[in-house]
Amino acid sequence: MSTLTKPYHHGDLRTALLDAADALLDRGGDGAVSLRETARMAGVSPTAAYRHFADKDALLAALAVRGFQAFAAELGAAVAHGKAPLVDSGRAYVRFALARPGRFRLMFGPLLARAEAHPALLAASRQAFEALQANAGSRDEAWRRWAMVHGLAHLILDVASPQGQDVEAMIDRVIS
Amino acid sequence: MSTLTKPYHHGDLRTALLDAADALLDRGGDGAVSLRETARMAGVSPTAAYRHFADKDALLAALAVRGFQAFAAELGAAVAHGKAPLVDSGRAYVRFALARPGRFRLMFGPLLARAEAHPALLAASRQAFEALQANAGSRDEAWRRWAMVHGLAHLILDVASPQGQDVEAMIDRVIS
Repeated sequence: MSTLTKPYHHGDLRTALLDAADALLDRGGDGAVSLRETARMAGVSPTAAYRHFADKDALLAALAVRGFQAFAAELGAAVAHGKAPLVDSGRAYVRFALARPGRFRLMFGPLLARAEAHPALLAASRQAFEALQANAGSRDEAWRRWAMVHGLAHLILDVASPQGQDVEAMIDRVIS
Repeated sequence: MSTLTKPYHHGDLRTALLDAADALLDRGGDGAVSLRETARMAGVSPTAAYRHFADKDALLAALAVRGFQAFAAELGAAVAHGKAPLVDSGRAYVRFALARPGRFRLMFGPLLARAEAHPALLAASRQAFEALQANAGSRDEAWRRWAMVHGLAHLILDVASPQGQDVEAMIDRVIS
């Protein structure tokens, strides 16, 4: 046991570590996330952080799981409250990516290819992908729509970089 | 001047360095590319390599320029030889990405946001993007198609990872 003061309950510290890592992710992408810096930001020793996450990959996988859960919730809310499920979920998809690019890149980055090693990530990503394809009719049509919104998010993030109102207008015109 | 034997003419060495860096890119993405290792593979001193590329960013920009030139040529060939320009260029787009993922990720990665610092990259990428949008009708329709093929490439690379014939069949079904 560390002799440091630990002001956290077990579950609270895990959440606090994920919040700190999320902030690092926003600042500099997954390259900026380290267990040591995450522990420092949460005010605990690295040893305390390692009790929750075996290594950086485990920490990133847990961040991606939170990301996929938020993603599924935002897509679900868009579909539930809107009148045109496909258009509304498409807008929600692109907005989710633009709101926090680091999180989006982590969720759809190389980590996903190693998801077999992270059962919670595999489950969360599959659940989000299934929800995403639920309303689209045929499987090919589902892929077509998914590809379009995924590509639009990447093009705006990586190529076009328009700002403010123009992005919203562009998303609406392209998706609807 | 280095005292190493230099078997290259000026232009040949530049090409040899780019070929070596391209091989590194294929192996491990842009993180695997360094001027030192590129020079070693081309059989010259780092100093000789620095005469052609001021730093790693300049080397990566030159690689991306070659990528965009090959990209434009492959899309152009698909359009010239095919009967359905939009479908054929869409297939060529996704195949280009899948053939060499490291090159595709470099071309559409963070480097592009710094393209103002690399005039040749800015020019080559703009030329490719304009060619890409030439046959699509309206600007919104052009973005829609671009988003779809770009997203399909990313989804296959990052999410779905099917192999062999299935990919080709999937590309055809989704794009056509």
